[in-house]
Amino acid sequence: MASLCFQSPSKPISYFQPKSNPSPPLFAKVSVFRCKASVQTLVAVEPEPVFVSVKTFAPATVANLGPGFDFLGCAVDGLGDHVTLRVDPSVRAGEISISEITGTTTKLSTNPLRNCAGIAAIATMKMLGIRSVGLSLDLHKGLPLGSGLGSSAASAAAAAVAVNEIFGRKLGSEELVLAGLESEAKVSGYHADNIAPAIMGGFVLIRNYEPLDLKPLRFPSEKDLFFVLVSPNFEAPTKKMRAALPTEIPMVHHVWNSSQAAALVAAVLEGDAVMLGKALSSDKIVEPTRAPLIPGMEAVKKAALEAGAFGCTISGAGPTAVAVIDSEEMGQVIGEKMVEAFWKVGHLKSVASVKKLDKIGARLVNSISR
Amino acid sequence: MASLCFQSPSKPISYFQPKSNPSPPLFAKVSVFRCKASVQTLVAVEPEPVFVSVKTFAPATVANLGPGFDFLGCAVDGLGDHVTLRVDPSVRAGEISISEITGTTTKLSTNPLRNCAGIAAIATMKMLGIRSVGLSLDLHKGLPLGSGLGSSAASAAAAAVAVNEIFGRKLGSEELVLAGLESEAKVSGYHADNIAPAIMGGFVLIRNYEPLDLKPLRFPSEKDLFFVLVSPNFEAPTKKMRAALPTEIPMVHHVWNSSQAAALVAAVLEGDAVMLGKALSSDKIVEPTRAPLIPGMEAVKKAALEAGAFGCTISGAGPTAVAVIDSEEMGQVIGEKMVEAFWKVGHLKSVASVKKLDKIGARLVNSISR
Repeated sequence: MASLCFQSPSKPISYFQPKSNPSPPLFAKVSVFRCKASVQTLVAVEPEPVFVSVKTFAPATVANLGPGFDFLGCAVDGLGDHVTLRVDPSVRAGEISISEITGTTTKLSTNPLRNCAGIAAIATMKMLGIRSVGLSLDLHKGLPLGSGLGSSAASAAAAAVAVNEIFGRKLGSEELVLAGLESEAKVSGYHADNIAPAIMGGFVLIRNYEPLDLKPLRFPSEKDLFFVLVSPNFEAPTKKMRAALPTEIPMVHHVWNSSQAAALVAAVLEGDAVMLGKALSSDKIVEPTRAPLIPGMEAVKKAALEAGAFGCTISGAGPTAVAVIDSEEMGQVIGEKMVEAFWKVGHLKSVASVKKLDKIGARLVNSISR
Repeated sequence: MASLCFQSPSKPISYFQPKSNPSPPLFAKVSVFRCKASVQTLVAVEPEPVFVSVKTFAPATVANLGPGFDFLGCAVDGLGDHVTLRVDPSVRAGEISISEITGTTTKLSTNPLRNCAGIAAIATMKMLGIRSVGLSLDLHKGLPLGSGLGSSAASAAAAAVAVNEIFGRKLGSEELVLAGLESEAKVSGYHADNIAPAIMGGFVLIRNYEPLDLKPLRFPSEKDLFFVLVSPNFEAPTKKMRAALPTEIPMVHHVWNSSQAAALVAAVLEGDAVMLGKALSSDKIVEPTRAPLIPGMEAVKKAALEAGAFGCTISGAGPTAVAVIDSEEMGQVIGEKMVEAFWKVGHLKSVASVKKLDKIGARLVNSISR
């Protein structure tokens, strides 16, 4: 489990502690800091900013994907968070400040150590060894909190990519995932199935954490894949959702779910949306324990399948329901039926949207050169 | 579970019972027979033989493949069983007789109802609705029994394909797998992870049994994959091997093994032998319980990996060890080290062979036209 220690809540936060040695080594190691964190400085020479300001976007993500529980996720286009990051002489060198949070929520802390974007930005600065430049960050939330669409990961991904971009893109995507994981570890547990696709786009398989080993799974570019995302007005009881998970599972269910996860991967790589949907729908371990905790979910799945969806399951830990289909028009029809079922059976209002697979991941939206 | 009933041991065996109706319908249903079996007649008009005689070959198979336990298998070239099948006027119409069994074992029954090749041939004849022709079958075993290389499946596959070929190839490969499953169900349990690759070649993912749903996974034709197969002189205690399997497994191991199975499928489809080996080696559920029952197996795996193998695990339920590599020369070196480890640690003599992935499956070797 990664850890970020909590200092007295001063802000802006410097993650570089003052040192007695006036000329610190260029290749600083994490061990010189009072706060032990899992990320290390990875560049030998502190980079200079190549932009005065950058704006980035990171997409929503659907994790778990039925039998892909805890190791598979994908990014969906057109929903997500924005970060604007500026070189700010009013912020002390080596420090970061969160200036503004707008969008779907105002509940978030502007203390960088208590904010997903802040934690990921700090970790990225640490990897880059930034000591000479102060930054300020604006976060625009496009995603609601606790929807099961990777809201925290989107903020973290947008922030990590923003820091990397402003300093000339010195880090690779796996390193940025590690930075984002610092944030996920604090907010929702050390899991990469949202942050990895939020940064890398497409589908990403998490093969290992020690060391982190990610396998992007390329959905063929010439094929279409649409996600029908239906988010009910309901706060999923996160603790109950976790507690509902069995600690021991029958061998027969393990074999079944593994084979469906295997089929899911084959479907992604071959661009077979029908097989993908079927595999996504086939979870016998997690969905059966979680779905009853979301009013109407079972009826919503049934409605989606009856309306022609190739498959349907819970997005992340819910409460959003996700169905897959290969046409936007069909997606609209399916979405209406799912909203109807949430209302009729679960007595919940919900909102549907039909989104494409995001094949790019977190990205630079615009920039102002120095 | 499929079932084939056992009549009084008369041979040759007719699977078509005499009926009171002198002119049976052309599209016979299994329900008209006293013996209820899971296969049905699938062709509307009884086909005539197009050959007097055929000879077929079916390859050895490696099932389980580490985290692919019970749903993934592949075929290996150059090892396997042969069947020679003849139209034989001395055998009563609609019946089959096993004339001769040669090769690695003479222990097998020549009663078609108690022989893998016989059971699969009978099931295939039933699917084709053969009532007017008698057949005789010779089986040449290239595979030893109980080695973990799909010996029973190879015999069944060669026989099913032989019957299909002699009558003009009316059945598809999934139907032949169903015929072969009749035999597997009797001999080693209703599992398709040997019989499916033995018939179809390459890697095959078993997605479902009800109904049977197979997904061939195509390893890229331009890439090489070699299996180092090391069979020790040891009879694997089948009952103990089965009993060693846990009935309940920790969630954390389920997630790990599923993610490795997913990686294994990605590796196959992308032709990434290194990733394939790593995934194959990563089983935390089955291999750790079975390996200690095969003297020296853990040391053999270690020796294979130290000699450069990309991965190593138990083939099927053992006792054969299987390692993967992308060059035949390296395979020879790895095989020697594995044999050495079986001897030094397990005190078992063993034989190594290096074989390519078989991408074809059971096939016609030669035929004599009418």
